[in-house]
Amino acid sequence: MPARRLDGTAWAERLRHKLEPRVAAVRRHAGRPPGLAVVLAGTHPPSEIYVRNKIATATAHGCHAVLHRLPETASVDEALVLVRQLNADDTIDGILVQSPLPAGMGTDAESRVFDAVDPSKDIDGFHPVNVGRLVQKRQALVACTPLGCATLLDREEIPLRGRHAVVIGRSDIVGKPMAMLLLHRNATVTICHSRTVDLPAICRTADVLVAAIGRPGFVTPDFVKPGATVIDVGINRVETPEAAGALFAPNTPKRTQFEAKGHVLVGDVHPDVADVAGALTPVPGGVGPLTIAMVLANTVTAAEWRLGLHL
Amino acid sequence: MPARRLDGTAWAERLRHKLEPRVAAVRRHAGRPPGLAVVLAGTHPPSEIYVRNKIATATAHGCHAVLHRLPETASVDEALVLVRQLNADDTIDGILVQSPLPAGMGTDAESRVFDAVDPSKDIDGFHPVNVGRLVQKRQALVACTPLGCATLLDREEIPLRGRHAVVIGRSDIVGKPMAMLLLHRNATVTICHSRTVDLPAICRTADVLVAAIGRPGFVTPDFVKPGATVIDVGINRVETPEAAGALFAPNTPKRTQFEAKGHVLVGDVHPDVADVAGALTPVPGGVGPLTIAMVLANTVTAAEWRLGLHL
Repeated sequence: MPARRLDGTAWAERLRHKLEPRVAAVRRHAGRPPGLAVVLAGTHPPSEIYVRNKIATATAHGCHAVLHRLPETASVDEALVLVRQLNADDTIDGILVQSPLPAGMGTDAESRVFDAVDPSKDIDGFHPVNVGRLVQKRQALVACTPLGCATLLDREEIPLRGRHAVVIGRSDIVGKPMAMLLLHRNATVTICHSRTVDLPAICRTADVLVAAIGRPGFVTPDFVKPGATVIDVGINRVETPEAAGALFAPNTPKRTQFEAKGHVLVGDVHPDVADVAGALTPVPGGVGPLTIAMVLANTVTAAEWRLGLHL
Repeated sequence: MPARRLDGTAWAERLRHKLEPRVAAVRRHAGRPPGLAVVLAGTHPPSEIYVRNKIATATAHGCHAVLHRLPETASVDEALVLVRQLNADDTIDGILVQSPLPAGMGTDAESRVFDAVDPSKDIDGFHPVNVGRLVQKRQALVACTPLGCATLLDREEIPLRGRHAVVIGRSDIVGKPMAMLLLHRNATVTICHSRTVDLPAICRTADVLVAAIGRPGFVTPDFVKPGATVIDVGINRVETPEAAGALFAPNTPKRTQFEAKGHVLVGDVHPDVADVAGALTPVPGGVGPLTIAMVLANTVTAAEWRLGLHL
């Protein structure tokens, strides 16, 4: 029996719909809509798509969303000046600086710029104050991707208390906050990464497996306990016949898609895992739409907290 | 073959000795010694002992250490006023508010008072900024007990990279920062707690097991893989013949100590684990002295960072 499909697109739509009265309440109390500012520096095609989706979603649900572009050649100081202006702008509740920043800004640009965002407007949850408050299980703005995954697990009523959750990947953006959200839901949590010895064996002990690695089809059926819930955070574009041929047998849906279009999106989880897992997020249509919905949710939450509406 | 004894007392002495040139460098650059302020509110006999040890250690190694007492009846506001004075006092590099605060201060007193400590003086590593920066593997003041455990593992050259480390306990003070320190050392890390199902089986997969539960002798030999390293964070006082009889067989050292004195200190790890583990911290004389040494180390580190000496 193939795994139940955890439909991120459908959940994202329901979650966005549920935010509408909260958007209306912000408008009523503040006399203005929740405000989202997105900073996009340079030209990076995937970033253009992400930013467009975030702005469109926020606008479609009654928020005021503005895009601030900086040229590829902008300095860190220009980015910092812009962030400080947005911090001071009372009509802006959420500030999102799209990663990656241009390489020319230097290696420490992201931490400097992210640290400059007012923690109360930090809807990416990247500021150390928000990370620390998440760890301490206090009110915090939480990174959108792990928050989306946790919300999906909650809404799908996947049991977590006392269950073993394994997170593959220890990034600041996904792996570590994901581990904390699972811990707060009383799961026993294991964090695996590139140095982990015998990764498949550890993953096979998971009742809930979260893959956030960035390698197409890396999690194969031998990583998965029969019946486990698998959350696939990866979004990878397979573009060569060699890669597609190595990953997907002839006449499987992904192979057929590749042959039709010359490229195909695949997560970190191999499609064959659907034959073993109990429930699985598809790629696309799983974690991705939930991440975008959480940008909206965090903007509304930040507005509520700033207004003292939702404590 | 009994487990190798990881001698915290001896390591603490060596670590304190190594701090002496750093204390001297602070004196030379600042014209004053590193300054430690300890806030003790109310009367709590164990706190009196901890505070006395911390002050004595700092003083013996050339720091300026001052104890500020508040009465049992002090309000949160009085504690906050004192903390703000210490924040503003340039001769003070480290501020330590001894936990627990008097119950009369209310349930949120600790988070309010700890949050008020200047993060650059937060030698307990409790401030969300320090917790977040630890998670992000950035320069941070780290809680003394997990820092002491990690330092012990480093000095004893216990292999961590790719090994499985299991932490029992998810407190803000020990479990969660300990997990992060192990993760940063490239261990695969599992966090267990009161809701974990089949705890002994999970612990038996650990190459390094850290017990931070607060239950005397809870970790029995069936929790331990032969040859594993076991770090015992617990310090529990056994005071009744029933408890001593249930934990320790006649003629074992702890039972004999209990019979001689009417009480005995025992960790979270049962003494019989010494027959299975490869290496084990004793209680007393393991993690405890290292925690005190880390109060001194963090005071010196905070002074160096505030002076720009050690970046």
